[in-house]
Amino acid sequence: MSRPPADPPLTRAPSAAPTVGELSEEELLARVLPLLARPAEQVLLGPGDDCAVLAAPDGRYVISTDTQVQDQDFRLSWPSGVVTTGYDTGVKCAAQNLADVAAMGAVPSALVVSLTLPPQTPVSWPQDFARGLAAGCEAMGARDCAVVGGDLGAGRELSVTATVTGDLEGREPVRRAGAGSGGVVALAGSTGRAAAGVALLEDPRYRPGEDELLDALAQAQLRPCAPVPAGPAAARAGATAMIDLSDGLLRDAGRIAAASDVVVDLDAVAVAALAEPLAPAARLLGADPRDWALAGGEDHGLLAVFPQGVPLPGPFRAIGSCAPAPPGNGRTRPRVLLDGRAPHLALGHPVGEGWDHFEP
Amino acid sequence: MSRPPADPPLTRAPSAAPTVGELSEEELLARVLPLLARPAEQVLLGPGDDCAVLAAPDGRYVISTDTQVQDQDFRLSWPSGVVTTGYDTGVKCAAQNLADVAAMGAVPSALVVSLTLPPQTPVSWPQDFARGLAAGCEAMGARDCAVVGGDLGAGRELSVTATVTGDLEGREPVRRAGAGSGGVVALAGSTGRAAAGVALLEDPRYRPGEDELLDALAQAQLRPCAPVPAGPAAARAGATAMIDLSDGLLRDAGRIAAASDVVVDLDAVAVAALAEPLAPAARLLGADPRDWALAGGEDHGLLAVFPQGVPLPGPFRAIGSCAPAPPGNGRTRPRVLLDGRAPHLALGHPVGEGWDHFEP
Repeated sequence: MSRPPADPPLTRAPSAAPTVGELSEEELLARVLPLLARPAEQVLLGPGDDCAVLAAPDGRYVISTDTQVQDQDFRLSWPSGVVTTGYDTGVKCAAQNLADVAAMGAVPSALVVSLTLPPQTPVSWPQDFARGLAAGCEAMGARDCAVVGGDLGAGRELSVTATVTGDLEGREPVRRAGAGSGGVVALAGSTGRAAAGVALLEDPRYRPGEDELLDALAQAQLRPCAPVPAGPAAARAGATAMIDLSDGLLRDAGRIAAASDVVVDLDAVAVAALAEPLAPAARLLGADPRDWALAGGEDHGLLAVFPQGVPLPGPFRAIGSCAPAPPGNGRTRPRVLLDGRAPHLALGHPVGEGWDHFEP
Repeated sequence: MSRPPADPPLTRAPSAAPTVGELSEEELLARVLPLLARPAEQVLLGPGDDCAVLAAPDGRYVISTDTQVQDQDFRLSWPSGVVTTGYDTGVKCAAQNLADVAAMGAVPSALVVSLTLPPQTPVSWPQDFARGLAAGCEAMGARDCAVVGGDLGAGRELSVTATVTGDLEGREPVRRAGAGSGGVVALAGSTGRAAAGVALLEDPRYRPGEDELLDALAQAQLRPCAPVPAGPAAARAGATAMIDLSDGLLRDAGRIAAASDVVVDLDAVAVAALAEPLAPAARLLGADPRDWALAGGEDHGLLAVFPQGVPLPGPFRAIGSCAPAPPGNGRTRPRVLLDGRAPHLALGHPVGEGWDHFEP
């Protein structure tokens, strides 16, 4: 009678997961860069030299930068028990940066990424980050956006800064300042979902895996999905103003209104429709879903203004309109209205409030 | 008889310096951006929208990113009693980033900057940073390089990430890989000064203000000065390879040698001349000045390779030559030699060693 082979004798203790502190910067890069490198037409010289070289076919490029810091912009582990992975952070990095380019009506072409990692961070974290960043670009319709450089360094807290560039394809940039009275205010993507998500993640009453709707809201915070191709589509359709909804509908609509010297009048029925999918989370937590829809940031939807009568491109739906600004507007009267009246948030936040990094 | 006016009665306690935690992000930006904004021909749209828009006159741009983290890349206060100011950090940010563009033979055109600040940071710190960044650009010959965007956020430690872009002015980029056998290896700027400076700053035997030579070395660490116009000058003169000396002469020369498949043979007399100005610091600290010249990084000089017989542009001086790589080079034999022999550092560092962010 034969016996199954015995386990091989242990010649050494099983090794723990390697940490970034155990590798040199070059060894770490060698494990991370292959997960990001891909050939792309606009990359004339990729990573590995002092700079990358990018094509700017129409003689211009757009540029923006965004940072995420542990415990400020995300928690590594949340009170609900959820853990933020490197993959999540990579997806979020893609969403934040791609949305800024899309909001100019441009097509993202390249990213450079700086990662600051505590030495005890497992090597799998930056590898997962790279996978999330690549998958995020692909999922958000920016498959050809290439990572062309970066910086890896140590710090006490985990921090990610990316800079993105993009191509205007010969069009004029769509600025915040182009909204005209009578214009149609339209939204691509969502608003309030990431805010509902962070409220769930912060609350032990949320039990991940028990309710698909709640889990999807938590995902919207951890892995936001920006409607990137909607940006160039809006520009082609004639949008006259556009902004990335990173700080909340009221605050970001207020920025378009202030830059364009108009009033943005949001449609209460449309806002109620945006709030409706947030209701299950609001019920669980005793929150007001409309507050999230009006003041919650980080969904990275696009808010654009189209001339009246223009057919809205696919992902956009009308949620309001622009009216002329009365004298003194912005100081004595709010820039953003809801059905013609000053909006009030149920939970007493100041109107126009969104996310502020230095708020206590 | 008249008496001098008495001090006005104290109606409130003297206010402490305001901190960034007491301001909103927009209030802070309003205090920092005016210190940076300046009109520049290549800036088609400046800060304030989702992206800036830059001109790329020849249809290409170069891009690179660099991060400095408190206690990793600089100390806020050093054992010698010196304090790193926001102004210092701004100058260093300029040097690091501008040198990367210069090393491609390009002219810096724009910067985006992300600052992560602990809430208790005085508001004067980011203001000083902005002044140092602007002054650094100007002092290093990149007056027209414009800050076109950024991000301000909170964190537990102070961190600065900048991304720089540049214009090749119609020339091909000067890569690391273009060195040919027989080429002249030349240096613009210094090497070892910043390393001597950090050794001084870290040592209580260094007393700031007592010796101008030592103070100048400490300054080279705190406020490095990159020879930025030397980069495009080298490209115009026909340099075939170039690198920013950020990680030390041996390591960065080794990168050119590996990328170009040559051996770089440094001239011992030239290296001794580079080490000579470091001697006073070496005497004080019992160090070897040649080690600093060979292995010290962060001066942000430019190392370039020119074809034999080409007149070297102004700031460059020859410090070695390129020889053919024998078979097996880089594994069994070093890529960088000193007078034809493997270099040895007096203090026993491994040869080819420079700065590594994840080393213990």
